[in-house]
Amino acid sequence: MEFETFPNPAPERRYEITHVNPEFTSVCPKTGLPDFATITIKYIPDKVCLELKALKYYFLQFRNRGIYYEAVTNEILDFLVSVCDPIEMSVISEWKTRGGMYSIIKAEYKKQIE
Amino acid sequence: MEFETFPNPAPERRYEITHVNPEFTSVCPKTGLPDFATITIKYIPDKVCLELKALKYYFLQFRNRGIYYEAVTNEILDFLVSVCDPIEMSVISEWKTRGGMYSIIKAEYKKQIE
Amino acid sequence: MEFETFPNPAPERRYEITHVNPEFTSVCPKTGLPDFATITIKYIPDKVCLELKALKYYFLQFRNRGIYYEAVTNEILDFLVSVCDPIEMSVISEWKTRGGMYSIIKAEYKKQIE
Amino acid sequence: MEFETFPNPAPERRYEITHVNPEFTSVCPKTGLPDFATITIKYIPDKVCLELKALKYYFLQFRNRGIYYEAVTNEILDFLVSVCDPIEMSVISEWKTRGGMYSIIKAEYKKQIE
Amino acid sequence: MEFETFPNPAPERRYEITHVNPEFTSVCPKTGLPDFATITIKYIPDKVCLELKALKYYFLQFRNRGIYYEAVTNEILDFLVSVCDPIEMSVISEWKTRGGMYSIIKAEYKKQIE
Amino acid sequence: MEFETFPNPAPERRYEITHVNPEFTSVCPKTGLPDFATITIKYIPDKVCLELKALKYYFLQFRNRGIYYEAVTNEILDFLVSVCDPIEMSVISEWKTRGGMYSIIKAEYKKQIE
Amino acid sequence: MEFETFPNPAPERRYEITHVNPEFTSVCPKTGLPDFATITIKYIPDKVCLELKALKYYFLQFRNRGIYYEAVTNEILDFLVSVCDPIEMSVISEWKTRGGMYSIIKAEYKKQIE
Amino acid sequence: MEFETFPNPAPERRYEITHVNPEFTSVCPKTGLPDFATITIKYIPDKVCLELKALKYYFLQFRNRGIYYEAVTNEILDFLVSVCDPIEMSVISEWKTRGGMYSIIKAEYKKQIE
Amino acid sequence: MEFETFPNPAPERRYEITHVNPEFTSVCPKTGLPDFATITIKYIPDKVCLELKALKYYFLQFRNRGIYYEAVTNEILDFLVSVCDPIEMSVISEWKTRGGMYSIIKAEYKKQIE
Amino acid sequence: MEFETFPNPAPERRYEITHVNPEFTSVCPKTGLPDFATITIKYIPDKVCLELKALKYYFLQFRNRGIYYEAVTNEILDFLVSVCDPIEMSVISEWKTRGGMYSIIKAEYKKQIE
Repeated sequence: MEFETFPNPAPERRYEITHVNPEFTSVCPKTGLPDFATITIKYIPDKVCLELKALKYYFLQFRNRGIYYEAVTNEILDFLVSVCDPIEMSVISEWKTRGGMYSIIKAEYKKQIE
Repeated sequence: MEFETFPNPAPERRYEITHVNPEFTSVCPKTGLPDFATITIKYIPDKVCLELKALKYYFLQFRNRGIYYEAVTNEILDFLVSVCDPIEMSVISEWKTRGGMYSIIKAEYKKQIE
Repeated sequence: MEFETFPNPAPERRYEITHVNPEFTSVCPKTGLPDFATITIKYIPDKVCLELKALKYYFLQFRNRGIYYEAVTNEILDFLVSVCDPIEMSVISEWKTRGGMYSIIKAEYKKQIE
Repeated sequence: MEFETFPNPAPERRYEITHVNPEFTSVCPKTGLPDFATITIKYIPDKVCLELKALKYYFLQFRNRGIYYEAVTNEILDFLVSVCDPIEMSVISEWKTRGGMYSIIKAEYKKQIE
Repeated sequence: MEFETFPNPAPERRYEITHVNPEFTSVCPKTGLPDFATITIKYIPDKVCLELKALKYYFLQFRNRGIYYEAVTNEILDFLVSVCDPIEMSVISEWKTRGGMYSIIKAEYKKQIE
Repeated sequence: MEFETFPNPAPERRYEITHVNPEFTSVCPKTGLPDFATITIKYIPDKVCLELKALKYYFLQFRNRGIYYEAVTNEILDFLVSVCDPIEMSVISEWKTRGGMYSIIKAEYKKQIE
Repeated sequence: MEFETFPNPAPERRYEITHVNPEFTSVCPKTGLPDFATITIKYIPDKVCLELKALKYYFLQFRNRGIYYEAVTNEILDFLVSVCDPIEMSVISEWKTRGGMYSIIKAEYKKQIE
Repeated sequence: MEFETFPNPAPERRYEITHVNPEFTSVCPKTGLPDFATITIKYIPDKVCLELKALKYYFLQFRNRGIYYEAVTNEILDFLVSVCDPIEMSVISEWKTRGGMYSIIKAEYKKQIE
Repeated sequence: MEFETFPNPAPERRYEITHVNPEFTSVCPKTGLPDFATITIKYIPDKVCLELKALKYYFLQFRNRGIYYEAVTNEILDFLVSVCDPIEMSVISEWKTRGGMYSIIKAEYKKQIE
Repeated sequence: MEFETFPNPAPERRYEITHVNPEFTSVCPKTGLPDFATITIKYIPDKVCLELKALKYYFLQFRNRGIYYEAVTNEILDFLVSVCDPIEMSVISEWKTRGGMYSIIKAEYKKQIE
């Protein structure tokens, strides 16, 4: 899958970019009912940055997919790392209440520097 | 007691899962009156993850049991560690006001790595 | 059922008493799972007032009863009107999220004055 | 379309029922992008009440439909009035920010009493 | 008991004065334990206004008195009406949680104008 | 000036539409410095509704215009009334702090019904 | 004293202007210590509006004056009515905590229309 | 003075217990007027835990004692350390506004481990 | 200038005292207009503590002085260090909005221990 | 470009200055539509401090410039470092929602000390 990025305007400096999507929705694979989450992407770019519109369309692909909280969080991290090769990245998903409980999943990536 | 778990979808990565139950209730062993708490489970899974519905039914078992704040917090931690063998886990219980005071108990576990 | 009341200390004045119980819990008759609500009782007393401890024990009777939102709200109003014969009374029940939605029920009573 | 209702447990009393769905989503017919809203249904039941699960599944039908804010609000009101014939009903839809602005639509119905 | 007042600086105008005391405390006559409340006095003065320091010392007299919520609210209203003869006055007492519930009492006075 | 509207989907019902723009900015005619406001448009449509994108572009025209708080609020009301001929409309502008004070202007229109 | 006003840009319409000054300070005439308040002026203009900078300088005159809560509120109302002759005006002063209590004074004016 | 404790149910684990009392009151030794504070006790128990009711009655002893902020905070810490011999303990007192200022005192204790 | 202090009641323990003054005001030396700030003093006392009333009167001296944000923050720190010789002290000043921006200044002192 | 600074009044002490501008606006280079952000500048001054009015006018230059989030954040940091040569400085830009997502960019600078 194609994903648009653009050159980091300050590649010599380690700085932090955060994108927050409070409108993420996917489907529970067990019940077929929709899940809702706020997804927070925080990263230190290396050579390229994530294009915002591309990120929005990437999130839209989950709208009708059945997938668990833990799986979707790790999949987003793996995919976004693959498309922009950041120095560091974290993904936090905060899910709306289901069965009287709510959940938060947090996964992180750090580039190995040899 | 049986407790359903499922395979960790990203076992190679140390990531953090939080489940919050704002609807926990047990009974005060002294007065026989109900206590109310928000229970927060935070853990780094190893091979398996806690299944959400199983967690909900586990909490329901306390609804009519008489047990003290400190005891219930440690019992939940011991039990959940035993069923999913996590790398780390913490349990926080935040109790509603009784006698003009409220209480918070926080217990943590870290797996011994030889 | 007995319910303790005490003489209104200012029966010549129309004034308003509110009791709020944020720890109400009953059971869903369909699923057998617990429901949680904040119950607000607001009334203008006539000859007697509701005793607070009696009110607390009255609410406790619902802890393991299966009953719907609409029914429990009307039942509380009917019962409390019967025990203290107020000039006016309202009962509001505000329920915690179930299936992604939450509900509020509000019922009112006014004494017929001939 | 079938929609489950149940008999009003207190038909002799005018009381108010509110259901709030903070997880409503439909699709913008112009852009094809998802819209998100909190939908609040407030009504005074007559002979029957809206069943909660039926309401949830009714809202789910909009997930992939293209429809404008004003139209969806009026359609929900018309449909729910038709299935439970209430004494009064209002529908409020509060939409998330689009293009730097957010919108709220509020429609009301009162039964004609001859 | 003496209570200092001062002449209303704008007796020709109906205006509203509110004093809020979030540090009111008295004693429960049943248990001997302290109760805590926020007391709000709102009034339209006639010829005189309540002096603030006098009001503070008046409230202090309740610190070690055993008295019920309903009684203290009406007693404060009766006393303050007697010392400043206002056109209107209301007293609201909002009490801290006891036994999992909290209470609010509101009493009002309007001068009879012949 | 052209302004896009669309047919009211429920012209037989009196219902209320609110659009909130927290990103309004114009210029102070005295100092030449920018002013910032949240503009709230609330109206009961008659035959047509305001198109959201048209509304956004209408607000953008003020970005570099020098105009006072009171004038801009009345001008917006006059213009929007002229383009959609509503049954009722109100415009509220809430301005950010200038010189240690902030201001709110509220203007309303009701159609004369012969 | 001079006070700058400007012509009402919409004299044919009854609309409402609110100015809020959260930085008002005067001096307690008893103790000589400073008092702090938020002053809210709300009015319906007739022929002229209050100029904002003039209003700011008017408030500054109280900075080192000893004056009571009730007096300052009525004086501000009297003065501002005299300089802009509004259709209606209200002044609300909300004072910071003194001796564990805080106070709010609210005075209103309506023009007599023969 | 006697103070009830109970055996730590999990003495092998370092975990944290917090008790918060938002209803603490003592008397200012200078003015004789009451002071109000929220007292937070946080500790890691060793062999015994503080009994909640005993803690409540301990706090009540300060109700009519004249004592300064700094002294009361240190005295509470010294006393509670003496009765339960914890591994660590902190006491935070947060005082209501006096003379336009409010204060917070925080004292900590760590057991010396030889 | 004299400044009252009192002996530290627990000189053997390192503990922290915070005083917050949300009612600080001085004058801008450029415009002559008042500035408003919340001043927070946090320190670890050595032999003496700051007396609260003395602190209040010290702050009052700035009421009509022209002085910049950065200067006043450092001057307060220097002065209070000189009068109580603390182990550590910090001063934070948080200023109200001027020209659409607000500012926070934070300065710290640590005693050199030979 | 000229930028006014003034001598650091406490150059011997490492202290922190924060300026927050909640009214920053620039233009999206792709769509030509305005973007809105809160910009926070935090720095430890060396020999000179940023003059507040100069900072305000500097921000105004972006009002009609097309520039991306990441570029503007780094440009502000580079420019302000160049005009005041601070010991440390950070710039945080927090942007209003666009396309259902919002973004935060954070860049930091530390002076190299040989």
